[in-house]
Amino acid sequence: MLAAGEALERLVRDVADFPEPGIVFKDITPLLADHVAFRTIVTALADAGRDADGRPVVDKVVGMEARGFILAAPVALALGVGFVPVRKAGKLPGETHAVAYALEYGEAVLEVHRDAIGVGERVLVIDDVLATGGTARATADLVAACGATVAAMAFLMELSFLPGRAAVGDVPMTTLAVV
Amino acid sequence: MLAAGEALERLVRDVADFPEPGIVFKDITPLLADHVAFRTIVTALADAGRDADGRPVVDKVVGMEARGFILAAPVALALGVGFVPVRKAGKLPGETHAVAYALEYGEAVLEVHRDAIGVGERVLVIDDVLATGGTARATADLVAACGATVAAMAFLMELSFLPGRAAVGDVPMTTLAVV
Repeated sequence: MLAAGEALERLVRDVADFPEPGIVFKDITPLLADHVAFRTIVTALADAGRDADGRPVVDKVVGMEARGFILAAPVALALGVGFVPVRKAGKLPGETHAVAYALEYGEAVLEVHRDAIGVGERVLVIDDVLATGGTARATADLVAACGATVAAMAFLMELSFLPGRAAVGDVPMTTLAVV
Repeated sequence: MLAAGEALERLVRDVADFPEPGIVFKDITPLLADHVAFRTIVTALADAGRDADGRPVVDKVVGMEARGFILAAPVALALGVGFVPVRKAGKLPGETHAVAYALEYGEAVLEVHRDAIGVGERVLVIDDVLATGGTARATADLVAACGATVAAMAFLMELSFLPGRAAVGDVPMTTLAVV
């Protein structure tokens, strides 16, 4: 069994100066192209939604557009619970909750369908990288707006030099690697 | 076993006048929130990449940003082959092939990493809706630019009043419903 940390170390590619000078981008596409590694990290992320006996303890898995979809949809299927997309403004056709969050310059808006998560449900939030925590915090706010609870968040990687964990607050959090 | 066609009929929601007046949007989010239905349609789409004995006959599954990711990633895992994202311009950090395609007004560009698909590989292309066929045709061109072959395409839905199938050309095509 390939360990998740080993898969990430071997198959996540650092791309310098992307999307702008001075940024080192964590490219997960080599990992996604290796189905054994991909399955390994899906299994590890799904464990964040299980109790000590391996039973699912969440009602929904939420993934953020766009790379979060690639991870969160298989995690939802692995747990046997529904998948809910959080999307950029204007992409969801039904009635939505919307939350604005700060970018380096300006702000962006994330949305979720109002009927996608039931009152009192427990939610696992999945994304690839925890950086500043802006999208994670906004997603937690969207879950709360539905009357539901973020039971846990799980990320492939956490950037050690950014305050993402502090931004998200007091939520159980799993990261498969700190980079 | 829930049939794929039944799942689509029951759980795809028509939203009138989205994203603009006169368009009826096919909203698949209720289907994604039902894990039994979601698993059913993933299994049905994956069958497009198997031979008569159930053996995978493709080397990669390609999904188009963003809703295509939600379907194609689980299909790749179901088949036990790698997942390759096709993304909008400027999102992929490595060396890419790029193809422009026509929108109703103007054009858009799709990209794939040059090293994501090997020369001679066989590819299954997955998306949610086949409409004009513009993104499907562009994706086929990207696969060809890698020196690979589109072995099959599979979609949840095909819009009967649009010429998507003709636009894509002579490729084995599966659609789970014609709407």
